[in-house]
Amino acid sequence: MNPISDSDLLKNIPAAMTWNGRVLRLLDQTQLPASETYLDIERVVQLEDAILRLCVRGAPAIGCSGAFGTVLAAREVDTALAGREWFKRFEAACEHLAETRPTAVNLRWAVQRCRDVAAQLIEANAPRAAIVSALEQEAQTILQQDRGMCSSIGRHGADLLETILKGRKTATLMTHCNAGALATAGSGTALAVMYEAHRRGIALRVFADETRPLLQGARLTAWELSRAGISATVICDNMAAAVMREFKPDACIVGADRIAANGDAANKIGTYGLSIIAKHHDVPFFVAAPTTTFDLTLKDGSGIPIEQRNRKEVSEPYGKLSVPPEASVFNPAFDVTPADLISAHITEKGVCLAPYAFK
Amino acid sequence: MNPISDSDLLKNIPAAMTWNGRVLRLLDQTQLPASETYLDIERVVQLEDAILRLCVRGAPAIGCSGAFGTVLAAREVDTALAGREWFKRFEAACEHLAETRPTAVNLRWAVQRCRDVAAQLIEANAPRAAIVSALEQEAQTILQQDRGMCSSIGRHGADLLETILKGRKTATLMTHCNAGALATAGSGTALAVMYEAHRRGIALRVFADETRPLLQGARLTAWELSRAGISATVICDNMAAAVMREFKPDACIVGADRIAANGDAANKIGTYGLSIIAKHHDVPFFVAAPTTTFDLTLKDGSGIPIEQRNRKEVSEPYGKLSVPPEASVFNPAFDVTPADLISAHITEKGVCLAPYAFK
Repeated sequence: MNPISDSDLLKNIPAAMTWNGRVLRLLDQTQLPASETYLDIERVVQLEDAILRLCVRGAPAIGCSGAFGTVLAAREVDTALAGREWFKRFEAACEHLAETRPTAVNLRWAVQRCRDVAAQLIEANAPRAAIVSALEQEAQTILQQDRGMCSSIGRHGADLLETILKGRKTATLMTHCNAGALATAGSGTALAVMYEAHRRGIALRVFADETRPLLQGARLTAWELSRAGISATVICDNMAAAVMREFKPDACIVGADRIAANGDAANKIGTYGLSIIAKHHDVPFFVAAPTTTFDLTLKDGSGIPIEQRNRKEVSEPYGKLSVPPEASVFNPAFDVTPADLISAHITEKGVCLAPYAFK
Repeated sequence: MNPISDSDLLKNIPAAMTWNGRVLRLLDQTQLPASETYLDIERVVQLEDAILRLCVRGAPAIGCSGAFGTVLAAREVDTALAGREWFKRFEAACEHLAETRPTAVNLRWAVQRCRDVAAQLIEANAPRAAIVSALEQEAQTILQQDRGMCSSIGRHGADLLETILKGRKTATLMTHCNAGALATAGSGTALAVMYEAHRRGIALRVFADETRPLLQGARLTAWELSRAGISATVICDNMAAAVMREFKPDACIVGADRIAANGDAANKIGTYGLSIIAKHHDVPFFVAAPTTTFDLTLKDGSGIPIEQRNRKEVSEPYGKLSVPPEASVFNPAFDVTPADLISAHITEKGVCLAPYAFK
């Protein structure tokens, strides 16, 4: 079977990022669905800004862009510096980049992997140009591996879905936020499962939570599903329970930003509530993520740092005041879904059913 | 104890409606919190438009405004018509008005009550002017009764809250949409409980779901709580589960638009999901509503008609496109919370604990 990234399904969905050897071109996801605009990233500070503003978002995509960010960082550090001093500055730039968003583990993972490549070459007294070249190669490898992981997640997830459907060729699914092509270098995580199921001839109807405050479900998920020819219906986040009662979905499938050793999964705010509502309606709740999302240094989800974001994301949707200035706003970007509300994790290595056995 | 409407608490919150004998002046709630603007309603068609656009909203407030709407209707029907013909036209206008929004039972209830007053006077061959005058009196009575019901709900609810708090003088509460002064002619339903608790010296922290798509929680609830000196924190609807885990609220208190004989309660979309999440966290879930909200002709909530509203409320928040045109939108205005997820109903006659015994 061909990997899904080879199929025609995704031909209408622009890549979240491309690298031309000098510039990292990012699709500016804050402008979707109204317009397809691109950011040409030539400096690390630009990338950090793009990550902070969610022009590029989604744990795997942030990871891949971070890997290319280390190439930019290596180019920016003065080549006249001695090896150890050069590496110290490079490492500091990597650390600053890795701290841009704290919850997803993939950014730090990818940056660290590139840093380690540079460290080895510095040890070997390699010239700076060779280091930059090796970093570029490593970033390309990370990107290609991410693509492959997406395809594998898609296949394992579609197998699981077919098991649930018992031969039925129609399915109703729900998802939250965007765990699609736009969140990765490939076909996505949660949405990779949908693309693969669609390719296998299963007629899908997907309910996408709009995902306040930044509406990634409405703006990105509905957009890319529609472009791939999959029927998408957008709902406000608070309609999920009504949809589950009325339309009896076959499964919820979401992505993850970090998964602890016990299976607790941090994902976009609202995922935890959705998992409770799914449990109440006996709807299977699947988390699709590459194994790079697992952080086995954390025993459970309580150790995952949760990013608090700006008040204005909630209080001024599209620049118009919706919350009076006297009122407070609570705006966590993520929440943690406990393992016991997750029916299975779908990874590129296969489906892990609870209880999880990690070493 | 003085009724809460006599207290200073609400002095900074403008009334949802006032009647000057000729014009029904409505606070245009679509413009809050940015500006306090008013609509002068002189014709039934203007009132219907205001109800449809949610300039006036909240089941009790719609009921009260509908009562004054019958006065406008009576004035509009040609006085030269014979009694029976006049009444037929008047009745048709009332029916049209009552159908403006289908879910809340209070609108139809109030319009019907006024219609019955007119019917009796027509039977007695009363002059048109006497009918208009009687309708005006009836509408004023409905409005005053609504105020009284709010105060009583506040007292019964605050008693219940004090029982839960066991002497503690601080409480964390959650609410959804707006069941406050703006939703009634008085101090509200769910928020009446909060105003009364505040008056009794209980320091409240209230988390208000913003309540997509029309943001009544952010725009109206946070606004009126803040004006009354109660600490309000606005969250996106999908943050409720994270808030319950982190802040362990003492209770959720919401309003209702129609309650069936078995206790199933229709309320703003999202209430059902919130009740599931509350149950999961062992947070008591209270529905505060006057007994006029009960529709004992319905055995359970499955018979409550659910209004579907315009796609654009979801797809174009503040006029900016968030959902691609290719994607569908599902936009029910209400959902039904089953009685078994409701810890108690707080009415003006007292607190009903499940199981409910209605006759």
